[in-house]
Amino acid sequence: MTQPDERPKKLATRLAPVLEQLQRQTVVESVTHRQQQQRADLIENLVQRQQRAALVRELNKLNKADIGHLLNMLPADKRHTVWAELPNATAAGVLLELNDAVAEDLIDLTAVPRLLSILECLDSDELTEIDDLIPAAILQQAINALEANERRWVTQTIAYPEGTVGDNMSRDSLTIAEQATINEAIERVRSAPELPPQTDKLFVINRHRQLVGIVPLVELMRHPGEVMIRDCMDTDVVSFAPNDDAEDAGQAFERYDLISAPVVDEQRRLIGRLRVETIMDYLREVAESQALAKEGLKADTDLFGPILEGARERWPWLVINLFTAFLATRFISLFEGTIEQLVALATLMPIVASVGGNTGNQTAALVIRGLAMEQIQAGNLGYVYRKELVISLLNGTLWGSLLGVFAWLLYGNPLLGAVMMAAVTLNLLLAALIGISVPLLLDRLHKDPAMGSSVVLTFATDSMGFFLFLGLATLILV
Amino acid sequence: MTQPDERPKKLATRLAPVLEQLQRQTVVESVTHRQQQQRADLIENLVQRQQRAALVRELNKLNKADIGHLLNMLPADKRHTVWAELPNATAAGVLLELNDAVAEDLIDLTAVPRLLSILECLDSDELTEIDDLIPAAILQQAINALEANERRWVTQTIAYPEGTVGDNMSRDSLTIAEQATINEAIERVRSAPELPPQTDKLFVINRHRQLVGIVPLVELMRHPGEVMIRDCMDTDVVSFAPNDDAEDAGQAFERYDLISAPVVDEQRRLIGRLRVETIMDYLREVAESQALAKEGLKADTDLFGPILEGARERWPWLVINLFTAFLATRFISLFEGTIEQLVALATLMPIVASVGGNTGNQTAALVIRGLAMEQIQAGNLGYVYRKELVISLLNGTLWGSLLGVFAWLLYGNPLLGAVMMAAVTLNLLLAALIGISVPLLLDRLHKDPAMGSSVVLTFATDSMGFFLFLGLATLILV
Repeated sequence: MTQPDERPKKLATRLAPVLEQLQRQTVVESVTHRQQQQRADLIENLVQRQQRAALVRELNKLNKADIGHLLNMLPADKRHTVWAELPNATAAGVLLELNDAVAEDLIDLTAVPRLLSILECLDSDELTEIDDLIPAAILQQAINALEANERRWVTQTIAYPEGTVGDNMSRDSLTIAEQATINEAIERVRSAPELPPQTDKLFVINRHRQLVGIVPLVELMRHPGEVMIRDCMDTDVVSFAPNDDAEDAGQAFERYDLISAPVVDEQRRLIGRLRVETIMDYLREVAESQALAKEGLKADTDLFGPILEGARERWPWLVINLFTAFLATRFISLFEGTIEQLVALATLMPIVASVGGNTGNQTAALVIRGLAMEQIQAGNLGYVYRKELVISLLNGTLWGSLLGVFAWLLYGNPLLGAVMMAAVTLNLLLAALIGISVPLLLDRLHKDPAMGSSVVLTFATDSMGFFLFLGLATLILV
Repeated sequence: MTQPDERPKKLATRLAPVLEQLQRQTVVESVTHRQQQQRADLIENLVQRQQRAALVRELNKLNKADIGHLLNMLPADKRHTVWAELPNATAAGVLLELNDAVAEDLIDLTAVPRLLSILECLDSDELTEIDDLIPAAILQQAINALEANERRWVTQTIAYPEGTVGDNMSRDSLTIAEQATINEAIERVRSAPELPPQTDKLFVINRHRQLVGIVPLVELMRHPGEVMIRDCMDTDVVSFAPNDDAEDAGQAFERYDLISAPVVDEQRRLIGRLRVETIMDYLREVAESQALAKEGLKADTDLFGPILEGARERWPWLVINLFTAFLATRFISLFEGTIEQLVALATLMPIVASVGGNTGNQTAALVIRGLAMEQIQAGNLGYVYRKELVISLLNGTLWGSLLGVFAWLLYGNPLLGAVMMAAVTLNLLLAALIGISVPLLLDRLHKDPAMGSSVVLTFATDSMGFFLFLGLATLILV
């Protein structure tokens, strides 16, 4: 036997206990962090050693979600090797589990014929899940390959803007006519070739396909078989319109503990279904992209992507920050004469700016949460302003005085201390004002307040920190 | 009729169309943001006008989740008035829906006898949901009032640390013996006096109460009645241990699209159930408290709470930031002589510090996401460091040069421009290094990297921004 054939055997022998443990654990145990890492190490090892046969064998043992997670963890080149080994049907399932950045990278490098074969393995729901990652021309080809009614549904659905309920709904739901009996409904469940995922209830419709109620699956087992659906259905239904905001829908899912909910058009005709899984995915994606967007990064920024692209991705944010920092320091340049006379001012001024920024960001964080949870409204806005301004006045006086004393002791100049105290207090008041107003304004403009607030705020507290401190110093000290 | 009796009538007439619309909409429509606001305005109005009877009437029309949301929105004093009007059973349900901050506030002001009556309305699952908000002595009294087996379960469950699966699991689940038939299982569902919420499957146990599989409810309808559960159950079960991390469990729920999952002890005996609802709640709470913790605020910070408390809540963060800002400016004081000779340095130095901080926070945000999604591991760490350092070198050279040219043009000093460029590039390299290392270090120490990273990073990039720029200027310019 030749070398290359012997190596995998040795490797397999060495890794046998690990593998056995992994397999056992995928069956009845939850997959822990450590196990995932072991698995990733194993696969990476096989890719490195170009053990193609062993790699394929190992991949076959994993489910699509786990392969997806693995690809998310691998550096780009190894990710590509594993992707190339996946059968099209598996690749299709895996595609749905990937980070957007990783999925886009893999879609980009997949030859068009293979990509089309992969997309053919997806049903219409799955296709609409990843439609925005696929180049338009290829997406159109994939849509054309669908059956007529699926094609119509996909075309309609991808037209709903991102972040709407329509963009996140799925097609299949189990419906039952209001005049059917419990027995007929059970027969409907029994005879369905495949049940839509997360089916927890039947949607009850009248002859115009209008939603009139729901029947939880368990209720089918708890009523006598001859009872009419119309007499035992629940008419207290939380439903959504396709243009509703998906985040609002997420809040409703949480508030009413929903697993699935109907989506209806203006005539209350059933047009789709919203599932807790999709909503959870969506909320996680939003939270994630917000965390990145706060630092001026896009949600599809790929930590393992090419370097030049990584450098270019950061330019817009760099430019904005260079520009605002530059502008803020222009306030310093107004007072260069004052600084020349009392250089201690140059040393102390960043403190005034920095404390303002931090306090303003605290206020903004509270206001952003209040807006997200719909706690802030016209009626209590005055209260919020008053409260935050009083807090700033208190804390500004208290901590500003302390800073003032420090400055006095450090430079032996009591007036410098007084300037410090006044500037800190005024800058904290300004920070509170801006910390409330900017998120509110962004919210009114239907922008995400979590995003732009910090740039504007930092610019304002920096500029005004410099201006107030140096301006007061010029008036009082020089 | 007297004034006070006439007023509600007028108000009711005026508000009749709004009310009617609201009622209709709670039945079959989703409740939109606007409707919630209208409702809050109406209730607030009734509280303001002290229309007690009308207020009680309106509250009766709302479900517990909606009353909870309303209380979250009301300023503290009005919140207290509404709370006082709620019957104990309603108050108990509402308590579960409140923000922690609001719930704590209301629990604090409720007289002990009423609080105990309210807690008596909660079952053991509900009690463990809010156990950490209730003063220990009162919680113990409430637990003592439970039946023996409930009491044992609650006592066990509240012992699991926060953030574990055990802390989030619920007690009730529908179980079936492996040797039962489908018909017996259906009878079990039919005869249960009340089904646990979000029951989507039966847990199959052997005679030792060990978990051996699951049967989705729908499957009960899709198999012939005489089939044995053991022959049709699914043995590929994702289960959790009570000490597993709740966030990891959340990821598993997402990855495997779970609605509920069993919690088992070391002998695989069933001890509880984890529900998608609880996990969603938990994940949202974590995300929320992270957003606040990043700005040094506690999750239970109450935007509508008392002012003095609000001021005091911000002290720790203020002190940390004052201290680090003060420390960072000590680096400036080292070079006061240099600044005296070239005051332009004072104007330009904040730009170097600020650009470093922003770049470092970008890197940190990417690393924090990579850690949260378990994409970063020992094997690809070197790649991440190399990539981020090269990006910093590229961007530092490019944008540093631009800044340098600006500085040169502004102050007519080409050497000042060169110092600017060098300082920006070096500070960006340092920012990348720290942006990766600090989150990693916090993660290794089992701290949340999203929390402390930004303080350390800003301190480092500020200090080094000042030090590098002024140090280079001292070497080259003076």
